[in-house]
Amino acid sequence: MANINDISKLAGVSKSTVSRYLNNGSISKNTAKKIKKVVDELNYIPNTFAQSLKATNSNSIATIIPNFIGFSKNISLNSIDAFLKTKSYKLFISNSNDNMKEEIKLIYSIANQKVDGIILFASQVTDEHYRAINDVKIPFIVIGQELDGIHCIVHNDYKAGKLIGEYILNSGHKNISYFGVGDYDKSIKSRYLGLMSVLEKDKTIKVKYHTVGFDVYSAYNMLINTYKKNKSTYYVAATDNIAFGIIKGLKKLNLDIPKDVSVSGFGDYDMSMIFNPALTTISFPYSDIGTISAKMLLDMINGIDIPKKMVLDCELKIRNSTRRLCT
Amino acid sequence: MANINDISKLAGVSKSTVSRYLNNGSISKNTAKKIKKVVDELNYIPNTFAQSLKATNSNSIATIIPNFIGFSKNISLNSIDAFLKTKSYKLFISNSNDNMKEEIKLIYSIANQKVDGIILFASQVTDEHYRAINDVKIPFIVIGQELDGIHCIVHNDYKAGKLIGEYILNSGHKNISYFGVGDYDKSIKSRYLGLMSVLEKDKTIKVKYHTVGFDVYSAYNMLINTYKKNKSTYYVAATDNIAFGIIKGLKKLNLDIPKDVSVSGFGDYDMSMIFNPALTTISFPYSDIGTISAKMLLDMINGIDIPKKMVLDCELKIRNSTRRLCT
Repeated sequence: MANINDISKLAGVSKSTVSRYLNNGSISKNTAKKIKKVVDELNYIPNTFAQSLKATNSNSIATIIPNFIGFSKNISLNSIDAFLKTKSYKLFISNSNDNMKEEIKLIYSIANQKVDGIILFASQVTDEHYRAINDVKIPFIVIGQELDGIHCIVHNDYKAGKLIGEYILNSGHKNISYFGVGDYDKSIKSRYLGLMSVLEKDKTIKVKYHTVGFDVYSAYNMLINTYKKNKSTYYVAATDNIAFGIIKGLKKLNLDIPKDVSVSGFGDYDMSMIFNPALTTISFPYSDIGTISAKMLLDMINGIDIPKKMVLDCELKIRNSTRRLCT
Repeated sequence: MANINDISKLAGVSKSTVSRYLNNGSISKNTAKKIKKVVDELNYIPNTFAQSLKATNSNSIATIIPNFIGFSKNISLNSIDAFLKTKSYKLFISNSNDNMKEEIKLIYSIANQKVDGIILFASQVTDEHYRAINDVKIPFIVIGQELDGIHCIVHNDYKAGKLIGEYILNSGHKNISYFGVGDYDKSIKSRYLGLMSVLEKDKTIKVKYHTVGFDVYSAYNMLINTYKKNKSTYYVAATDNIAFGIIKGLKKLNLDIPKDVSVSGFGDYDMSMIFNPALTTISFPYSDIGTISAKMLLDMINGIDIPKKMVLDCELKIRNSTRRLCT
């Protein structure tokens, strides 16, 4: 790889002049032009990480993700990276593999590596997260879960639940099944709480809760095992993936969607519109949450005050997997 | 964050003893136990990146990905990370945003940052890639594209094409449409070449090539605009995503799949089995390619000879989106 010696020789200037150029020191326009030409030709890139260990700012930030699976996270990562590139910041990504102990370790070890800030895609948050984030004392933003006293950006899952609830209330369904993942994921639990805040108002509506996993097959099996007993006319899935599993199960039982049964999800993944039938669901601003979190983190790094908590909006997308019973 | 002073105080030993412990120096079992307890309680993690700048090995490797979109890459990243964790290696991920100039820059800048090796998920490879990889002189593996003289691991796209070709040959379809993405992605082009190597043998078979993008809607629109003219009974899509778009278009035209038209893809994404109808496609070992590339990279780092090129196997999955015309 090229080094300062090579540049000095090819540009016909001294090493200290090259060094001044690379560190934005005082230098004539003509000389700068000559050096720039050589630097570009050689694809020379200064060792910024080594520099960062001496300097205050590393111009790099890290994100911790729980796993490599999932549509929404990829969209958000893409917009974080795009925003950081416009500010000449680098993004490093580390994966906790859905292991909370590992995630806490990563927070400490990454903070120790002189990045300027961290964005955590949280699936669960524990007291240990709270302690670690306070310990490391670097700009820190949590995406997707709320944590008292820590900067966080979340989707409006409660409102999302309410929007589905209002749609059901207005379409005459009375026998509802909810396919959720239990209580440990607080943001997904909020969807259920929002839904119930609306449906509770109508005493003729019954909602049966089923606990499933995040994968399609868990929902598929639960549907096959419980449909005959419940015969719900509307299935609320806590995620689009769960909705795909329910629909697959209903088709296996030769039921027509939405004629016999309505199904809606939460998420609006790229497949949700392409799926047959196209899925009624809630659309969250995955790209915005990435851009905003990156912008807020850089604000924090630059000492600008930002709000402790931001809640983004969401939208109901009515497609072909649901219908009104009444007109 | 905790430092060596804190550990020294809490464990009641001198700083130099703590330092000896952290650097695996000579120390009594009892003292080691005391220090370990404190280190664990404090979640203390030594600054390995700073250490790595002095040491030969950083125990970290980097991957460069073209974007954050895509099922197959996520599966492979997951298995790379899982393998590296078992060897106490860290993984850093950087994104080139499908910008080849950016990708070349990343190769130089990451190599400069004292990682022990690089895995590149390649979508295109150019002469500049070849030059950069030779320039940086660190262990380097390319996934997904072949590059003469550079270590690479690829899927067997040619065989994948042949498998679809043999299936078509045996099921009596004569009027075939191929939805491809053009020539620039060599591995996807190999699928077409493999397909044609089989279908050319039967002079009664006609294949019409259509160039589309990687997104679902490009294929959807192409299908809507060309179906009436071609009336093919079998559509070969170069990826599962393209197949989803074709199926969406055929349904829009009120055609039954597979009764009226057969459609197959390449990829076997997680949605392909869940889709209605479940997609006939080629399954590639995405998880294996990740594990093998990580293992080979660590072998290279440790000076062990590895083959220049590995080609992994693939498998035809016949599902409900295709049928035989003859019995």
